[in-house]
Amino acid sequence: MAQTTRTRIVILGGGFGGVYTAMALEKRFRGAAHVDLTLVSKENYLVFQPMLPEVLAGSIGLLDVITPIRRLCPRTTLYTRTVEAIDLANHRVTAPAGFGSQHYSLEYDHLVLALGNVTSFAGQPGLREHALPFKNLGDALALRNHVLHVLEDADIEPDPAVRQALLTFVVAGGGFSGVEVVAALNDFLRQVAKHFRHITPADLRVILLQAGERLLPELPTRLARFAQGILEKRGVDIRFHTRLHGATAEAALLVGGERLPTRTLVSTVPSAPNPLVAGLPVVTERGRIVVNEHLEVPGYPGVWAVGDGAWVRDATTGAPCPPTAQHAIRQARCVGENIAATVRGTARRAFAFTALGQLGSLGHRSAVAEIGGVQLSGCVAWWLWRMIYLGKLPGLDRKVRVMTGWLLDLVLPPDIVQLKTDRACTIRREHYEPQQVICREGDPGDWLYIIVAGELEVHRHVPDQGERLQRRLGPGECFGEIAMVTHHPRTATVRSRTAADVIALDRDAFGALFTTLPPLRHFVEQLMTSHLGPLPLDAGAAVGTGHGAPH
Amino acid sequence: MAQTTRTRIVILGGGFGGVYTAMALEKRFRGAAHVDLTLVSKENYLVFQPMLPEVLAGSIGLLDVITPIRRLCPRTTLYTRTVEAIDLANHRVTAPAGFGSQHYSLEYDHLVLALGNVTSFAGQPGLREHALPFKNLGDALALRNHVLHVLEDADIEPDPAVRQALLTFVVAGGGFSGVEVVAALNDFLRQVAKHFRHITPADLRVILLQAGERLLPELPTRLARFAQGILEKRGVDIRFHTRLHGATAEAALLVGGERLPTRTLVSTVPSAPNPLVAGLPVVTERGRIVVNEHLEVPGYPGVWAVGDGAWVRDATTGAPCPPTAQHAIRQARCVGENIAATVRGTARRAFAFTALGQLGSLGHRSAVAEIGGVQLSGCVAWWLWRMIYLGKLPGLDRKVRVMTGWLLDLVLPPDIVQLKTDRACTIRREHYEPQQVICREGDPGDWLYIIVAGELEVHRHVPDQGERLQRRLGPGECFGEIAMVTHHPRTATVRSRTAADVIALDRDAFGALFTTLPPLRHFVEQLMTSHLGPLPLDAGAAVGTGHGAPH
Repeated sequence: MAQTTRTRIVILGGGFGGVYTAMALEKRFRGAAHVDLTLVSKENYLVFQPMLPEVLAGSIGLLDVITPIRRLCPRTTLYTRTVEAIDLANHRVTAPAGFGSQHYSLEYDHLVLALGNVTSFAGQPGLREHALPFKNLGDALALRNHVLHVLEDADIEPDPAVRQALLTFVVAGGGFSGVEVVAALNDFLRQVAKHFRHITPADLRVILLQAGERLLPELPTRLARFAQGILEKRGVDIRFHTRLHGATAEAALLVGGERLPTRTLVSTVPSAPNPLVAGLPVVTERGRIVVNEHLEVPGYPGVWAVGDGAWVRDATTGAPCPPTAQHAIRQARCVGENIAATVRGTARRAFAFTALGQLGSLGHRSAVAEIGGVQLSGCVAWWLWRMIYLGKLPGLDRKVRVMTGWLLDLVLPPDIVQLKTDRACTIRREHYEPQQVICREGDPGDWLYIIVAGELEVHRHVPDQGERLQRRLGPGECFGEIAMVTHHPRTATVRSRTAADVIALDRDAFGALFTTLPPLRHFVEQLMTSHLGPLPLDAGAAVGTGHGAPH
Repeated sequence: MAQTTRTRIVILGGGFGGVYTAMALEKRFRGAAHVDLTLVSKENYLVFQPMLPEVLAGSIGLLDVITPIRRLCPRTTLYTRTVEAIDLANHRVTAPAGFGSQHYSLEYDHLVLALGNVTSFAGQPGLREHALPFKNLGDALALRNHVLHVLEDADIEPDPAVRQALLTFVVAGGGFSGVEVVAALNDFLRQVAKHFRHITPADLRVILLQAGERLLPELPTRLARFAQGILEKRGVDIRFHTRLHGATAEAALLVGGERLPTRTLVSTVPSAPNPLVAGLPVVTERGRIVVNEHLEVPGYPGVWAVGDGAWVRDATTGAPCPPTAQHAIRQARCVGENIAATVRGTARRAFAFTALGQLGSLGHRSAVAEIGGVQLSGCVAWWLWRMIYLGKLPGLDRKVRVMTGWLLDLVLPPDIVQLKTDRACTIRREHYEPQQVICREGDPGDWLYIIVAGELEVHRHVPDQGERLQRRLGPGECFGEIAMVTHHPRTATVRSRTAADVIALDRDAFGALFTTLPPLRHFVEQLMTSHLGPLPLDAGAAVGTGHGAPH
């Protein structure tokens, strides 16, 4: 076994596929000083996705569903980075510099691609801007904060229609993740609503959109019916044969034209292959990398792929593996064995694995399960769910923390604190459908808008004549600058004539850019002059007259 | 007691002063249907600041130091808003709209100002851009994430000087908060360092800067010495007679000219009165609102002030009250009684309170305390600290959670997950001292820079001649656009000639603005043409030739 050269193994991806491959390789190469293991992951932790809905409900601590990767594979060098480029021809992967001095270039002898898939809202107007994904821990926290924020607002909202929209929560997708999210969200909402003075649980509308005619197509009909019954009993409004078309900041838009006014739209449906994979010269099937029975990429010896991003055929059944954690973990072990076999010149094995079963949580003490052909539902399935996933949760300390969380959850009320950690998100994209109001006469002007696509109309209230059209605005035009400069309220209402995309800048971003960069200063000065006549504009951007300006 | 008109009481501020005033008023007016209580707070929770350093160390859960305000004062209407304006003449407070329909205008009969103070780095160059404050929960989380991020980077950093800077942690301020933060930070660092493959505790430098000649000027010398001894034994390098002058992204700058290379600078020193208070027509003393012995603002009957933002003289001693939670809580109770007395036409009482004592945590099982004139230090003081603050922590559920956290902390290892929730912070401000590198030839170009103040130099490496000055850049000029458009590496190094402030935009912000807004597109096209000769520039911002462009 004496080797003279080092073997460099680089693993890309910090999900189950990547991390379990590193764990398998650490085990296979225990004490082997000639093997360098490197893992590149966007986060320094592994997210235990089955428990993500529990973070939303607050029944376990925020950090308890994630395990530090360094603890799981202590002998692997971890790069907490987003992979920038993969160069299969030169056996090299690059990652950007962080606080440190330089760009990283990692050379490999073996490369394991475990990049999974990403959330993609392409093709659905407004979803990228306004839908909330639910895939990683950041998404769960963002959704939780968002929900608390709309409840805060609903509690003090005087307009009944706006209040109803604030208290409407829409989840799109009736598969496992959609059902688990809507169950957790519904439980959480109904529990916390009682802490708000002016909200009762009866005010809440929680809607689940499902394109097909039943929930959970992955499970037998009996279990799907059971899940449907539980959710409906707990107040979830399930809409079958209903598909999401798009979204605006104020509504979910359904295929067929219906408009559901809401401020909270969660979409669990869309996932797309990692864009890094799309750029590789490898054979793919539905965006997933095709591998041979040893999980190696044909034509690229030493390059392997596992997990949701790999197209793996089971050696026994010949069927493609579904994108589940169970399969990713087994593939990771197999690839670990096969890399070790390659390094040592011994025989590789073909991948084969039959799924053990499926489990879906329905929130408060209920679940559905199919294990080894046996169908279970209700409290028994829920206990099984908790025991199985507690067992699978990596790391003893996490198990203890989650168990403690569950115990405390039995006796303590849920948390209703809204955790804001964002410091300065100053530029955002927005999507509007025709006839939506972008800003309203009389409101304070805290945003500058730049039109990317579509056409808008500027209306102003004229005494004795009502609202009158002033002019139209198109792509590249911008509005709202005068209210920013003068601090006066908007003196016109801007409405979309067609579907429109805009970029909105807040006061900080406006101040930073438009007072510093000469072409922008001149642009704003010209714009204001054309509306107001000549006026002085200081670098401080806080002067101006602004009487009756149409913004 | 039959009253015909309603009494509207509005409280501004969600710290101890504001929340305890609401609690006191709920108690005084129990069952009184004619009193409307409203509290406006930026967050929907009260932060229990004494335990904030424990969040940093991870010994208690992230959410356990905060208590939902709705739980503490369930009969008060909570507006989770930043106050926009206070109009004392018209008895009105305004707050911006959230997701809801409109701007809020709140009229009051009694107004309690409990706005506290804010972090302010005015007058210290680079601190606003690069120093980390430590005042609220967001700050504690941001610091924790930042520290984990630099450890991640140090673990894979090949350059020894950069690595040393990454592993240097500077805290400015040797008062209570500085000492508590440095103690918690030091404990945390030394505990987690062992999970990083290439970092040992001996590599860490933790430095505390103190302007005076001793720590904790609030406490007797003996206790300060004790604290100093504990911190030094645990590896903290304490620099007396040392004052912070400013900061850059890569160093803390000391008065006298010394430069401490670091990526982590925590400043606990600066706090300034809330800017809303500065705009009020009331008498202030050092920015704090002067009140009479009943805590009412002279000249404005029905307007009261409590907490850190109020200048209160103790009725017994005549001395001004220090800005502590103890005092804020007692003032809140007094103002609650006095508002009730005013409404009911009974006698008010003058505020008087003698502080019970002072406690300071030194991290791992050590503290200093002075209570009723008795001085305590070490483990006894630490037990006292935990028991007293556990008792003061509002809410039984929090007490249970914190106790559980402390118990788990005894047996489980600390968390080393880095929690990123920021989605898109795309514009940032940076400060440079003379002769700093802003971008380096050969690096990838991920930022566009706009100069706000100062002068920069563009250098390029010329074969056989070394680095040569190409030209100078001044305020309003921008650079880095070509690397953004062409995706080529930087072909020049830009260095500050004088102290300089710049705005940096990332690729997303650049793409959104510079391809949408015509004056900016023209500006970038002109800029590139002047450097490269004519070239096509598509709206997609991904084209261009960029050979040898000086950016």
